[in-house]
Amino acid sequence: MIQIAIAGYGNLAKGVECAVRQNADLELAAVFTRRDPKSLTIRTPGVPVLPLQEAAGWKDKVDVMIICGGSATDLPKLTPALARDFNVIDSFDTHAHIPEHFRAVDEAASATGHIAFISVGWDPGLFSLNRLYASAVLPEGKDYTFWGKGVSQGHSDAVRRIAGVLDARQYTIPVPEALERVRKGENPSLSIREKHTRLCYVVAEDGADRAAIETAIKTMPNYFDEYDTTVVFITMEEMKRDHAGLPHGGSVIRSGVTGWDRTSTQTIEYKLTLDSNPEFTSSVLCACARAAMRMHGRGVTGCHTLFDAAPADLSPLPREELLAHML
Amino acid sequence: MIQIAIAGYGNLAKGVECAVRQNADLELAAVFTRRDPKSLTIRTPGVPVLPLQEAAGWKDKVDVMIICGGSATDLPKLTPALARDFNVIDSFDTHAHIPEHFRAVDEAASATGHIAFISVGWDPGLFSLNRLYASAVLPEGKDYTFWGKGVSQGHSDAVRRIAGVLDARQYTIPVPEALERVRKGENPSLSIREKHTRLCYVVAEDGADRAAIETAIKTMPNYFDEYDTTVVFITMEEMKRDHAGLPHGGSVIRSGVTGWDRTSTQTIEYKLTLDSNPEFTSSVLCACARAAMRMHGRGVTGCHTLFDAAPADLSPLPREELLAHML
Repeated sequence: MIQIAIAGYGNLAKGVECAVRQNADLELAAVFTRRDPKSLTIRTPGVPVLPLQEAAGWKDKVDVMIICGGSATDLPKLTPALARDFNVIDSFDTHAHIPEHFRAVDEAASATGHIAFISVGWDPGLFSLNRLYASAVLPEGKDYTFWGKGVSQGHSDAVRRIAGVLDARQYTIPVPEALERVRKGENPSLSIREKHTRLCYVVAEDGADRAAIETAIKTMPNYFDEYDTTVVFITMEEMKRDHAGLPHGGSVIRSGVTGWDRTSTQTIEYKLTLDSNPEFTSSVLCACARAAMRMHGRGVTGCHTLFDAAPADLSPLPREELLAHML
Repeated sequence: MIQIAIAGYGNLAKGVECAVRQNADLELAAVFTRRDPKSLTIRTPGVPVLPLQEAAGWKDKVDVMIICGGSATDLPKLTPALARDFNVIDSFDTHAHIPEHFRAVDEAASATGHIAFISVGWDPGLFSLNRLYASAVLPEGKDYTFWGKGVSQGHSDAVRRIAGVLDARQYTIPVPEALERVRKGENPSLSIREKHTRLCYVVAEDGADRAAIETAIKTMPNYFDEYDTTVVFITMEEMKRDHAGLPHGGSVIRSGVTGWDRTSTQTIEYKLTLDSNPEFTSSVLCACARAAMRMHGRGVTGCHTLFDAAPADLSPLPREELLAHML
């Protein structure tokens, strides 16, 4: 049994707890938190909840530490720090800072003989894998990534920070016509506005200036100003009833040409439709924990991504069964 | 430059020839054939066409031999034989016999320090990879593979063998309602008949008994008797004008549940829409040739499948670029 520990206990960690339970070769050893451990109630019976600063004392009892923190401030510090004592996995998702994060984690893990996987999940993660496979197979072509329909937590948070907003949920929605053109292999040039629209459900304070809130949302730099955004005011009851989940998904599509005269169009699409974004991401983290243990058992150390793991290492099935039933 | 040789020169080999030209790090060294080499005209200038029995003399000039033969009789003999002198790749696609073929090729390649990849293409191949990744991520779920709309060469050949048939083209078509139910995450139980229909275009000899041909097709064991099949008689001109290509494709879909109470449905779909089946398969073979060379350079020998290749090894891009732009 692979002993899994979790650092942090938010939505993602709760998903890891569920995913560990679905994998017969994984077992939850401990949950570490920066909050008061007594304030947390976890679901798995008999598993200790401990202060994060006591983690190092568990280094001989844990095979892989799955780090469930935010990419903005938590993971850049936590992952390299924990990689000194543990094999680690995180879901670092700030694409622009991946090379920098990779170097910091690689240094810590290599120095202490541990293995680390960063940026594991679906984007980055399974979407990245499909970008890589598709571009390797179709060298002459064009990539597209569409997200949604789904809740963007970053955009929802940004709306919540506007004065007069009590709660907000932002859905990212692909533009159907753009998706159709890409699926047909047209390889169109698409602006940001032409690829996605944004839909915000907002609960406003009594007496708040709704027109001002709507303008503040639609003109917010980076988050909304380059998109066509729709703002819908709803009640707190409606928010709780209709928008409690965190669905997401999207498609990675590559169209390329083959043949001596490049006359054949070939299109590859990888599509996710997810009821729960954090539960799916954590399911990928758990499969990766298995691969990390196998690779570490063969002497592999340092920082890696899903690009470096042979697919067979992610599966609980032995090679003979993969060949007989899955190939 | 990785020196590629091709054994055989049918549709698949012609696709390999085109794909080599699209990859800057691959170069075509030679084509080997069992036919009279003078009878073949290949497209790449300056590349020799030689008798297959002379291949061994080229073992120091070729990095990877891509074997383009049929799975029924060619590959079970050719791949182990050529693996004694070369690193080899084939697209062996008789699913039931993969374990046996694997053992034969592994023995030959291991004994002589070569690397071999078998069953490379899209099914088996990219579809298999997606079955593996999806089942590793969603342990509680169900897999579906739909093929088409596309030309099945085996079924077309079977129809051509019926007395009175001059030419035939068989399209495999997924049943739209079945596909929709699977995409919605319903995980239905579907019979063979409920998943696919078959459509045959047939050119009959003048005066042939069309009703007898139609009955012979629809009742043919294994090929057609378990399917709803439509037979359409056309002229040779229509066949040449409308059915010259070899389009294919399909979808691998897995729906699973996550969460403590298994209440979230998560659906993964991998979909191919291919103008040319052989050109796409050969594009996968060429990406795999690159991975084979890299792995062999690190001392890996014996038989492998795409399950064993780290995705990064398939890409021409260096790790830094993959991290910065593709993750």
